[in-house]
Amino acid sequence: MPETTWTTLVQNKRESLSSLIPSEWRLHSLPSTVECPNAWDWVRATLTAEEIEITELAPTSLLANIHAQAWSAEDVVRAFCHRAAIVHQLTNCLAEIMFDEAIAAARSLDQHYQLHGTLRGPLHGLPISFMDRYRVAGYETSAGFVAWLGLKETLQSEALIVRHMRQLGAVPFCKTNCPQSMLIAATDNNVTGPTLNPFCRALSAGGAAGGEGALQAMRGSPVGWVTEIAGSARIPGAFGHVFALRVCQGRLSNAGIASASEGFPEHAFTPALMSWDLPMLQHMSRLTLGAQIYQGDPYCLDLPWREPKWMRLQRARPRFAILHHDHRVRPQPPVQRALNLVHAALQAQQFDVVTWSPPQHAAAVQTHFRLLGADGGSTIRSLMNKTGEPPVRGLQPWYQESTSSGKLLAEQLWSWSRERAEYRKSYATYWNQCNATDATLARVEGVIMPVLANAAAYEHDLSYFGYSAIVNYLDFTAISFPVTSQ
Amino acid sequence: MPETTWTTLVQNKRESLSSLIPSEWRLHSLPSTVECPNAWDWVRATLTAEEIEITELAPTSLLANIHAQAWSAEDVVRAFCHRAAIVHQLTNCLAEIMFDEAIAAARSLDQHYQLHGTLRGPLHGLPISFMDRYRVAGYETSAGFVAWLGLKETLQSEALIVRHMRQLGAVPFCKTNCPQSMLIAATDNNVTGPTLNPFCRALSAGGAAGGEGALQAMRGSPVGWVTEIAGSARIPGAFGHVFALRVCQGRLSNAGIASASEGFPEHAFTPALMSWDLPMLQHMSRLTLGAQIYQGDPYCLDLPWREPKWMRLQRARPRFAILHHDHRVRPQPPVQRALNLVHAALQAQQFDVVTWSPPQHAAAVQTHFRLLGADGGSTIRSLMNKTGEPPVRGLQPWYQESTSSGKLLAEQLWSWSRERAEYRKSYATYWNQCNATDATLARVEGVIMPVLANAAAYEHDLSYFGYSAIVNYLDFTAISFPVTSQ
Repeated sequence: MPETTWTTLVQNKRESLSSLIPSEWRLHSLPSTVECPNAWDWVRATLTAEEIEITELAPTSLLANIHAQAWSAEDVVRAFCHRAAIVHQLTNCLAEIMFDEAIAAARSLDQHYQLHGTLRGPLHGLPISFMDRYRVAGYETSAGFVAWLGLKETLQSEALIVRHMRQLGAVPFCKTNCPQSMLIAATDNNVTGPTLNPFCRALSAGGAAGGEGALQAMRGSPVGWVTEIAGSARIPGAFGHVFALRVCQGRLSNAGIASASEGFPEHAFTPALMSWDLPMLQHMSRLTLGAQIYQGDPYCLDLPWREPKWMRLQRARPRFAILHHDHRVRPQPPVQRALNLVHAALQAQQFDVVTWSPPQHAAAVQTHFRLLGADGGSTIRSLMNKTGEPPVRGLQPWYQESTSSGKLLAEQLWSWSRERAEYRKSYATYWNQCNATDATLARVEGVIMPVLANAAAYEHDLSYFGYSAIVNYLDFTAISFPVTSQ
Repeated sequence: MPETTWTTLVQNKRESLSSLIPSEWRLHSLPSTVECPNAWDWVRATLTAEEIEITELAPTSLLANIHAQAWSAEDVVRAFCHRAAIVHQLTNCLAEIMFDEAIAAARSLDQHYQLHGTLRGPLHGLPISFMDRYRVAGYETSAGFVAWLGLKETLQSEALIVRHMRQLGAVPFCKTNCPQSMLIAATDNNVTGPTLNPFCRALSAGGAAGGEGALQAMRGSPVGWVTEIAGSARIPGAFGHVFALRVCQGRLSNAGIASASEGFPEHAFTPALMSWDLPMLQHMSRLTLGAQIYQGDPYCLDLPWREPKWMRLQRARPRFAILHHDHRVRPQPPVQRALNLVHAALQAQQFDVVTWSPPQHAAAVQTHFRLLGADGGSTIRSLMNKTGEPPVRGLQPWYQESTSSGKLLAEQLWSWSRERAEYRKSYATYWNQCNATDATLARVEGVIMPVLANAAAYEHDLSYFGYSAIVNYLDFTAISFPVTSQ
């Protein structure tokens, strides 16, 4: 019996994915990227007025409307399924489609509410999307690898965050696209192919969480769970003009999120959240930090949201630092303009803003990528060899180079790790010194800087991550945010 | 000019250490270990009634007496210096003697109190000891290596915990002995030699924090800071019949604690506390968790003591689990007796106690030691080669074996690390299953088990750490406690 080739596996997957889009939601003539660079109007033109109202309302208000029974959960979920289906056809942003199950789950929530008069939880009825890495019961977790196709997750293997979302009443309705390997700032793989930037479909959606970035940009989901390792959420957040929040290691559980490098401590990714609505991210943080369910994960901290700290920070009117240029790669003019706008807005509000000159980013970020690539691609290569799928374009240089790099010695790994510890210390020293110079001044509580030097890029064309990956190297909490209105 | 040999360096250090003991506190005829196996009576016979009263009063009450001005800080510090000097001469427990400076600091605290009527901090006047690894301004940090002799620390290089203690008003007065390398459960090095068990001077004080264990056992200090990596605080705590508290990684700052393996993430030691008085450990935990000063340390969590959690746990009357035997090495009869006493005491108080059968310890702990020894001793060996000092007896087998082990590959390191992650998950699953079987029962909140299978040991004779090191492998908070009264 001949073995199934990887191309057949992919073809089957793509067909099965397409078949999950109801025929009435299918776009029968897809516009070219020249005809329709920006998908926004095309998406809206396919929807009813009510669907637009539902999907374009701020998610926290949307939730209130469901809870007030102004809208049924089913109507809300169905509207998002429809919008996501359209966005997917124009940007290729989805990796799994769970519409039927989601609509059924929403219906059951509505029945429960009508019968008992109680909500299933604080997120009762909220549609929610997940990066394809998150294991969801009943679906595959290809996460960009052909080799991972074929196995359907169970309630036991489901990611703790997904399970937590269900317990809070949210309704998973799709999984979003991510790249082969997670190690490129692009969203391209052999399974579903590249995700396009919905604002200019000739350009990259960014990555690794470009599927979610494109979906959020087009209001195809109120909020989605993704991950970060070197800007993987903030880069597509920036390219999609939405918010992306990255937490510190251990604040949220990684359990049940597929990774090619399990147990490799230097390679620690973190969960991240993406939404076009800032209050939704705050609401989600309150509901998910320190959740009981993480007791199943020995690597997750028992550290809930701290209201007093939050209130204190708000009262204190903190100082902000701003980094306009990392002295290596000058940000492109649109990025400079965004920084200047933020700087001026803070000053207009009488916030004290200091110029930031921290220890150099560029060399530090180089060590970050050495640590991420320390296994010479062996785990990724072995996954790819299982089916014979080739590396996608952005992965090729590193894939070929690492083949010849031989076996890494543990002592080399430790020396990089020591460099990281030294850098973190020097950064902390710099920060503390800035706060110590004048005790009458408020503390610097946050640094504002570009996510990338680039305002946009073609797929696989990004090459400098001194701005984005420094956050992961330092393991800081960070959020990327849109500056002007869309 | 001929280089100074390591033996000369050691001789000079020992002489300088001896000279720091005031002549009126010197024991002119030292008893043999046969003549005087237990140092207790000998220690007390050298002290005045007031010195005994001060040093044998529970430290929290001692603190209250200083703050009520019943005793001056100077009298208290002097009494502890005297007692520590005697204990040292009988057990060789100290690595640095700081009596003169401590007495002067106490005098200055008294003057401040008299002049201003205010305390310098909540620990105003409390004498405090530190394992030799903690860098203290004005003193060397040999930490068991001859090569580290010669350099005196400054206020800048001082450990953050030491600095924090000073800010709270505590008075550092001595540093306690630790082993060459920190990797043996003994307290022996070429600089100051082995520390003896004060209850039976032919036996080991345990290690790595055997200096503090012996000092606490003889009431030579109210509380001391040590470290843990595989039972390093709890083992000498058990052999010294005192409490030793080990916190999770990141709860307290490691900054300024000497380590031969900086930046080697698998090798993470944690600060630990030792005292013969349990309320003092609780008081110290409240004062030191989440302290502002750790902002200088990027690896330390902003996670203070949580009073509501503590109160909830007390009200809840938790279930306890008990592990009598790890199915590999049966605890010796005195250890079995201690466990039975605790078991019976909990049952007499109507606590629900369950028998614990977690995933096997022995293989797990083997991986723990593989991770600890993963550099094949190269950092330790290079430190020893600088002066030519030989390995102490307990370190010899590993030292010789690791010479021939060659260079470790990073992928081997990751496979051990993955094993650890798998073990931690399986342990969490076991624990959660025990809690899930019957929802009407209280949660299992703690596991009671032996620190070691051994009730006592000769120096360098311990060989099985399946009970102690499992805690570090799992990164759990743990405390060792005496069962019967002394």
